[in-house]
Amino acid sequence: MASGVEREQVVRNKQVIFKDYVTGFPKESDMQLTTSTTKLKLPQGSTGVLVKNLYLSSDPWTRAHMTKASSDTPSYIKTFTPGSPMTGFGVAKVLESGDANFKQGDLVWGITGWEEYSLINATESLVKIHNTDVPLSYYTGILGMPGLTAYVGFYEVCSPKKGETVFISAAAGAVGQLVGQFAKLMGCYVVGSAGSKEKVDLLKNKFGFDGAFNYKEEPNLDAALKRYFPEGIDIYFENVGGKMLDAVLPNMKFRGRIGVCGMISQYNLEKPEGVHNLMFLLTRELRMQGFVVFNYYHLYEKFLETVLPDIKKGKITPVEEVVEGLENAPSALIGLFAGRNVGKQAVVVS
Amino acid sequence: MASGVEREQVVRNKQVIFKDYVTGFPKESDMQLTTSTTKLKLPQGSTGVLVKNLYLSSDPWTRAHMTKASSDTPSYIKTFTPGSPMTGFGVAKVLESGDANFKQGDLVWGITGWEEYSLINATESLVKIHNTDVPLSYYTGILGMPGLTAYVGFYEVCSPKKGETVFISAAAGAVGQLVGQFAKLMGCYVVGSAGSKEKVDLLKNKFGFDGAFNYKEEPNLDAALKRYFPEGIDIYFENVGGKMLDAVLPNMKFRGRIGVCGMISQYNLEKPEGVHNLMFLLTRELRMQGFVVFNYYHLYEKFLETVLPDIKKGKITPVEEVVEGLENAPSALIGLFAGRNVGKQAVVVS
Repeated sequence: MASGVEREQVVRNKQVIFKDYVTGFPKESDMQLTTSTTKLKLPQGSTGVLVKNLYLSSDPWTRAHMTKASSDTPSYIKTFTPGSPMTGFGVAKVLESGDANFKQGDLVWGITGWEEYSLINATESLVKIHNTDVPLSYYTGILGMPGLTAYVGFYEVCSPKKGETVFISAAAGAVGQLVGQFAKLMGCYVVGSAGSKEKVDLLKNKFGFDGAFNYKEEPNLDAALKRYFPEGIDIYFENVGGKMLDAVLPNMKFRGRIGVCGMISQYNLEKPEGVHNLMFLLTRELRMQGFVVFNYYHLYEKFLETVLPDIKKGKITPVEEVVEGLENAPSALIGLFAGRNVGKQAVVVS
Repeated sequence: MASGVEREQVVRNKQVIFKDYVTGFPKESDMQLTTSTTKLKLPQGSTGVLVKNLYLSSDPWTRAHMTKASSDTPSYIKTFTPGSPMTGFGVAKVLESGDANFKQGDLVWGITGWEEYSLINATESLVKIHNTDVPLSYYTGILGMPGLTAYVGFYEVCSPKKGETVFISAAAGAVGQLVGQFAKLMGCYVVGSAGSKEKVDLLKNKFGFDGAFNYKEEPNLDAALKRYFPEGIDIYFENVGGKMLDAVLPNMKFRGRIGVCGMISQYNLEKPEGVHNLMFLLTRELRMQGFVVFNYYHLYEKFLETVLPDIKKGKITPVEEVVEGLENAPSALIGLFAGRNVGKQAVVVS
């Protein structure tokens, strides 16, 4: 299991370095690929773990770490340090451990570096992987943070009931595709929006959505929503914010629920767009509620028990887009904001 | 009790007539005082009630009835008919009843006409008044729709806990002043905003708020909120919308709650202002929830049991601004949108 690990062994360590704080859309040139070397040995007295990274995850929330911290920066965002490697979710193998919870050979998922080998001091973010009869990349997606996000957001925040109508934006993304499948398993009517024909086809043909549309080809989002939801929307799973939210609000049913998981259309704007239709919160008695998955980690085991059997039976199928090589990590991240990825975006490191 | 009521008696009936649909700010000239006559006799076979109106209520929601109906008009808004009398909440005495639930001499509150005498066919909106050892005008305010609104919004929607920090906009209004007093009784720290020095003094000296400010004199609402809530806001009782909501969002605490009761700053705009800071719903895990009092009438008896003893003991004190005479009803309504009234605005008809 621990092949290649020897005392004081020095290895090449490719890294993606964060160059400087970003305003507006991030560019590939905000990141730089470098190659350094690293000792495959925990420092004396370390309580961290030394890992070899296997998969890295490209997530929308990575963008938040690229903005210079302000008093408004939420505590779960640890702004990147210019000149240091990017960090994010990944799957890794433990090479050496100073933490009694992990041992050499363990597979883990959690926050690691965008590099081949990482010394992880904040081991509290790491979760041990016990089920290895599914692809390991799933732990960057359906069985990792995005999976738990979909589970918490749908079941805990949106209070779904059988037969309700559900609309999901960014529905082909890592979280959206799972919310849609959860909702279908529950007997809901599910429609998603996405930004390409390929994604729309995926929603309809692969994930079994009742309908899907390409928001870029709809001159009038309100009309599109009315076409798919003539009676209105019970649950809106919000991933994008801005204009889509404004179009959804007047189409919500009485006592509808909006689970705010993300607002990706706003992350790269210096000033977020204004949302005008909040009056419908009042007149329709809507509930709009945000959530951050990091506050729901205590539900991870319950989530696994729910979702693993459905994955093994093929009732839930994730779609991933896995690119090869750390050198492609920057373009994969940029692609996420351009909507280029289809499904969960991950990077194979090794 | 039924003095003056005789068969076929014809009396003068002053009325405030709604002239035509309004866009933007309503004006006094959108209403017209006329004098007609009315027979003090229920039509043959009527199941309605004939009443003599005692008090009429000037409420922000009246504005919604003056806009031409569209597909977005909520079902609880019955658009006024041009050429017919305005309607709204009031307190009245039953002169004759075709409804077995009411009898001659009963005092009631509910939806009536802006006139001296009304024939009310929609008797389901009427609530019989049993407690008459408080001023009858209270049934247009603290013991009527605004009181139930404050009760439902605070206790049912905002999930308050002792010691929490509460901010109330339009705090000197009919609803805000009660929410503040409920919150103080619960042991919360309470701050309100209002639009004049007189109102601010009322909040601090009469209603016992911990702090209050005049939003018109604050060049920076964010700074004002940070001054009163250095640690943030647990509960925002939203009456105004727009810029105030945008300033409040970044000052909310983790898992704070926003009860959306009204958005008076937006009612007269053709397009509502944009709200930009909704991202804080996500990062702070906020819950924002609208409510309409008409869906909570089943709580009225429970509400009375809670609030009547506190009123009688003087622990809750309403402040009303009662003007004399139906001819002053239009200016009282317009004054509401100009922020002229201090406390609950009512009109004595008789």
